[in-house]
Amino acid sequence: MSSDLDERLARAALSRALEPGIQAVGEALDRHGAVELWRRLRAGDPLVAPAVARGAAARLPDVAPERDLERLDRVGGRLLVPGDEEWPACLGDLGTAAPMALWVRGPLHLDAATRRSVAVVGSRSASAYGGHVASQLSAELADAGWGTTSGGAYGVDGAAHRGCLAAGGETVAVLACGVDVPYPRGHDLLFSRVVEEGLLVSEWPPGSAPHRLRFLVRNRVIAALTAGTVVVEAAARSGALSTARFALRLGRRVMAVPGPVTSATSTGCHALLREHDEVRLVVRAAHVIEEVGRIGADLTPPERGPVSEVDRLAPDVRAVYDAMPVRTGVGPATLAARGGVELAVVLRSLGPLQVAGLARQDGGGWVKAPGPRRSRSAAAPPPAQGDPRAAQPDTPTPPVA
Amino acid sequence: MSSDLDERLARAALSRALEPGIQAVGEALDRHGAVELWRRLRAGDPLVAPAVARGAAARLPDVAPERDLERLDRVGGRLLVPGDEEWPACLGDLGTAAPMALWVRGPLHLDAATRRSVAVVGSRSASAYGGHVASQLSAELADAGWGTTSGGAYGVDGAAHRGCLAAGGETVAVLACGVDVPYPRGHDLLFSRVVEEGLLVSEWPPGSAPHRLRFLVRNRVIAALTAGTVVVEAAARSGALSTARFALRLGRRVMAVPGPVTSATSTGCHALLREHDEVRLVVRAAHVIEEVGRIGADLTPPERGPVSEVDRLAPDVRAVYDAMPVRTGVGPATLAARGGVELAVVLRSLGPLQVAGLARQDGGGWVKAPGPRRSRSAAAPPPAQGDPRAAQPDTPTPPVA
Repeated sequence: MSSDLDERLARAALSRALEPGIQAVGEALDRHGAVELWRRLRAGDPLVAPAVARGAAARLPDVAPERDLERLDRVGGRLLVPGDEEWPACLGDLGTAAPMALWVRGPLHLDAATRRSVAVVGSRSASAYGGHVASQLSAELADAGWGTTSGGAYGVDGAAHRGCLAAGGETVAVLACGVDVPYPRGHDLLFSRVVEEGLLVSEWPPGSAPHRLRFLVRNRVIAALTAGTVVVEAAARSGALSTARFALRLGRRVMAVPGPVTSATSTGCHALLREHDEVRLVVRAAHVIEEVGRIGADLTPPERGPVSEVDRLAPDVRAVYDAMPVRTGVGPATLAARGGVELAVVLRSLGPLQVAGLARQDGGGWVKAPGPRRSRSAAAPPPAQGDPRAAQPDTPTPPVA
Repeated sequence: MSSDLDERLARAALSRALEPGIQAVGEALDRHGAVELWRRLRAGDPLVAPAVARGAAARLPDVAPERDLERLDRVGGRLLVPGDEEWPACLGDLGTAAPMALWVRGPLHLDAATRRSVAVVGSRSASAYGGHVASQLSAELADAGWGTTSGGAYGVDGAAHRGCLAAGGETVAVLACGVDVPYPRGHDLLFSRVVEEGLLVSEWPPGSAPHRLRFLVRNRVIAALTAGTVVVEAAARSGALSTARFALRLGRRVMAVPGPVTSATSTGCHALLREHDEVRLVVRAAHVIEEVGRIGADLTPPERGPVSEVDRLAPDVRAVYDAMPVRTGVGPATLAARGGVELAVVLRSLGPLQVAGLARQDGGGWVKAPGPRRSRSAAAPPPAQGDPRAAQPDTPTPPVA
């Protein structure tokens, strides 16, 4: 499919030539498509919005998408564009500010990993309290099958990624620089672990440097990718508050962890809680899950919703399934202890669970398989490319009461 | 007026014979009046509700109201009953659970002192953080002309009283024992200061011991006396939460100070904030005043409300007035420094402020006089005795839209 290749190259080129998140760019992309927009930009076509053309002109000589893709390939990364199976439909909520493309590194499937992921963000200069709360929260979320998405920065972000990884959870770091540019330096090791077990994501091509504006622009992607944003610690003008504001605008759940009123790093959290009735105070992971869990409940009418594979399991088999970790397999004896069932029950349940696509072997142990979670794309056609917001076309419009 | 004396003696007797806060008692009081209820109780009249009669029977031999009043007199106290000028009309919000009488000690006027008072309550076993926040908050409230009412207990209560006193504010301690029974022991000195500068209040006659149930019953009076309740620190089952719940039921503002989510003594505050949309998170005194200040704003239509004496002051005279403490007078030089005005401005402002009833001399210095604040009772007739809830009978009922 050479047209797919053209689309991919065009988006790689556009993401080198243009800054993401600019509405005029998104509008031009919607109007012309990526291939045509890229052709016109190169041709200096005056039909392209002046703002778009101006931004691109200076960079055009340096744009070489094949070279960028090779560079990405050398670090084991891949380019994602709208329409890819791995491209999360939820990014469509950003409208004309949706990413043009995403450069990613790591073993996780972006759509699957972010479907049950919470943004845990906060101050770069977190206190010991903030670091402790962030890592504890992310570890508890991981234990409950929820991943953590954050920005890879010092302080709360780093603690959140680490807490998630330590509990064997799925962590996604959305960077404001190329996925081969380890920024900040002190997170070299953390990023290596994320590349091995999680996912590094960026809107900017390899080698791109982080700029102040890019951090803010990046925050909208963290907000859009996740079911909700938890601000753990934030000073009065912290960038984490911009993620929270994006999340509010996108209709995502926004939560804040309180702290001592005597601590400057909690000022932003308290201000969020005071200024927005929609922002919920959360103390532990269960509170977060209560919030983000509601989204599914809200979208699925409880009486008429389809019964999931998991709901159909017999109680003892369900206990075995619930005892399984999401990552880093455990053996049958551990499953029996965790699930509170006989070893014999575990041994006779594993086969059926595997057949149902709910469990898989991982090394010497067993982990949950994402089988039934991924069934959404099988049940509903993927949204039409170019307008990911046109999801669920078959949903009847409720009559006006 | 011997009937007034009879009423006073009857209520003194009832408050020895019966526990307060019992609806059946309040109903009997409403039905028969204090003098008649007391006569019937003594006569063993079967017409009195059995619950009321049973509670009183065992105590009748010990009831000697004259002796209790003498005992109160010896410690310089006074008995307040409904209809007294000092009796706060807001207690009528408690309906049949309103106090039968209040035994008080201290120089403050109960109604005037509680008209601009906030309940600052919390854990007996407060952390250093909770103690610090409570005293800081009450001191800032005092600086802004708001008094602090609390329960005189160890921990947050004590810190709140102390912070208020230290800033020269008006503090009211509502006890669960007689006003001559210093409980807890370690607050001997604190209670001495409150008796000298503030107000000790109790529903129980002199010599009464504190019981577990009395603390809870007492909490409804703290909630009713104040414009709002701030919970500074509270463990999951803290008694301070009962004060907050009473305040919510009474339509008072309820606020909570957050703290570290890792601290057990903040658990109750976070639970309040999570479980009640009406509970506001507050960080500093300005937030508290914003909440309790609204009550006045809600009751007084902003356009049509009368302009207060203070609002009519010229800007430089107003600066002098604002610089004045509520208690413990300061000299003209201090007023000039605090108000940011010339000494000459202070000297020419003091006369007019005194004439307007807004300032008075106190020892060698000047303090705010409560003149215009007390004008409410002059403008509106006091509510009919026996049903204090029947206030503002002239307020037209708004038409149903």
